[in-house]
Amino acid sequence: MGWAIALHGGAGDIPRTLPPERREPRLATLRRCLDLGAAALRAGRSALDVVELVVRELEDCPHFNAGKGSVLTSDGTVEMEASVMDGAGMRCGAVSGLSTVVNPISLARLIMEKTPHIYLAFDGAEAFARDQGVEVRDQNHFITEENIDRLRNAKEANRVQIDYTQYNYTQPICAPNDNDDDNSRTGTVGCVAVDASGSLASATSTGGLVNKMAGRIGDTPVIGAGTYANALCAVSTTGKGEDIIRHTVARDVVAVMEHRGLPLEEAAARVVAGVPRGSVGLVAVSAAGEVTMAYNTTGMFRACATEDGYSEVAIWPASA
Amino acid sequence: MGWAIALHGGAGDIPRTLPPERREPRLATLRRCLDLGAAALRAGRSALDVVELVVRELEDCPHFNAGKGSVLTSDGTVEMEASVMDGAGMRCGAVSGLSTVVNPISLARLIMEKTPHIYLAFDGAEAFARDQGVEVRDQNHFITEENIDRLRNAKEANRVQIDYTQYNYTQPICAPNDNDDDNSRTGTVGCVAVDASGSLASATSTGGLVNKMAGRIGDTPVIGAGTYANALCAVSTTGKGEDIIRHTVARDVVAVMEHRGLPLEEAAARVVAGVPRGSVGLVAVSAAGEVTMAYNTTGMFRACATEDGYSEVAIWPASA
Repeated sequence: MGWAIALHGGAGDIPRTLPPERREPRLATLRRCLDLGAAALRAGRSALDVVELVVRELEDCPHFNAGKGSVLTSDGTVEMEASVMDGAGMRCGAVSGLSTVVNPISLARLIMEKTPHIYLAFDGAEAFARDQGVEVRDQNHFITEENIDRLRNAKEANRVQIDYTQYNYTQPICAPNDNDDDNSRTGTVGCVAVDASGSLASATSTGGLVNKMAGRIGDTPVIGAGTYANALCAVSTTGKGEDIIRHTVARDVVAVMEHRGLPLEEAAARVVAGVPRGSVGLVAVSAAGEVTMAYNTTGMFRACATEDGYSEVAIWPASA
Repeated sequence: MGWAIALHGGAGDIPRTLPPERREPRLATLRRCLDLGAAALRAGRSALDVVELVVRELEDCPHFNAGKGSVLTSDGTVEMEASVMDGAGMRCGAVSGLSTVVNPISLARLIMEKTPHIYLAFDGAEAFARDQGVEVRDQNHFITEENIDRLRNAKEANRVQIDYTQYNYTQPICAPNDNDDDNSRTGTVGCVAVDASGSLASATSTGGLVNKMAGRIGDTPVIGAGTYANALCAVSTTGKGEDIIRHTVARDVVAVMEHRGLPLEEAAARVVAGVPRGSVGLVAVSAAGEVTMAYNTTGMFRACATEDGYSEVAIWPASA
């Protein structure tokens, strides 16, 4: 029992050769965000406040694919998406197609709290952002030089980039691209937390895929796919969005716990094993204070901490 | 065993006093679409083809809230959404924010079959529709006099209309409106089928809520909420989208079968009982040829048929 927190910065085919300048800034950000979230939980903040706080920080970091640092569509624009779910009452909010909102996760929370709806997208979501007076910036804030390069490379190779893994732009997306490029890699962000009162929450935010079609919606804003939380468990996922949607990954971890009575770690491992290899990573916490970080990719940028002093910040499996 | 089909035209607080002129055209359309789908299954068409065929017909009928007959946003526009899932391979396609596409369900299928993505929305979805050369019409095709009246009434009463039930436009949407108006009622459409080879598919299409905010996405296009299918079962839901999203209703029917080993009817009844009363209806078929139509609303426009000759077309519970 007690509070617990876990966060991720994307899963995928992350090679052991990833140079330190690509690794270290991300690990440092994860460490800083973990400390921030743990301190907030220690101070008695709610799980919902904590996951929003942490994901906002990750959105503000240009080294991840969310908020500032979001990857570009085939049109060269940003279309950010995010969702949040409060296990208490199973309230949720989601947003897609944002191009000016600095912190999509906070807009998702405002949709949850200030509208009769769960999910707003594109122009309607931008209009709601204006109504609410949230911070907006022009595209220059979001678009990094690196992401302009990533889009150019993706277009030249006719491929889409999913978190840290590249795929040929053919349908269906089935196999990683051989001509891989370390510099092109960047990942979705997410955070789950259980607070001292046992309440759970999950939040996930992304820029989507490099070179995605304009209008494409991935798993991140889809409740049950990218994000889920109820009174039992909170889950945030990352990876190949289309696989995550069709396997309703976030909800399934909770469903396996509910219906099979399995503990969190076993439920998460079972769900991850049921999704095509190389496509998914997730972080999850339970009301009992359990925490798990599971993936079937080469690695996942991840971090977790619990009230009893356990903490971990890592990319690859510990054993290798 | 053998083929089976079930369809719905929305669930909600449908009063026994609903006048014949509101009842009969819808029941006649359901009967005609049921016959059409059954004939196609008898002729050996795949479940995927059949659910698309039937939902296209329902979209073309102005008496339901999908395609022609879609209800209006608070801006007076149509924003149609749909999704389809093929149990074989768990392929899926979804679309939101269409304003000109005559058959959203067919565009969802094209997204599934012709893009590396599952889900396109708003301008990007409309652009894809143009690329594919699907039939488009201006808003006059979709907007009926009845829906102009529905929006006017909803705005006057400051409420949103969810299928056949009205709610005060307050947050959260929690109780049906007392000042109900029979003429304002119209519903989402959906179809599930299992074909002679045991393959399953599900399709759902809607105009959403009367007086919804522009940009609002409901349960219909969300895989796992409005639509789900795998090798075991296919489900299409209708009702209060926000509840259906947070309970991942379509996926949960399948999850309860998978994880608890319950038969279809029991799984569907269990899931429907777990969602707030008055908020959901669903149709589902299993690979074993079982069919069920479950709801916790006053009624649901529904129809089903199986290879062994059973058929049903109804609104309210048989017992009452």
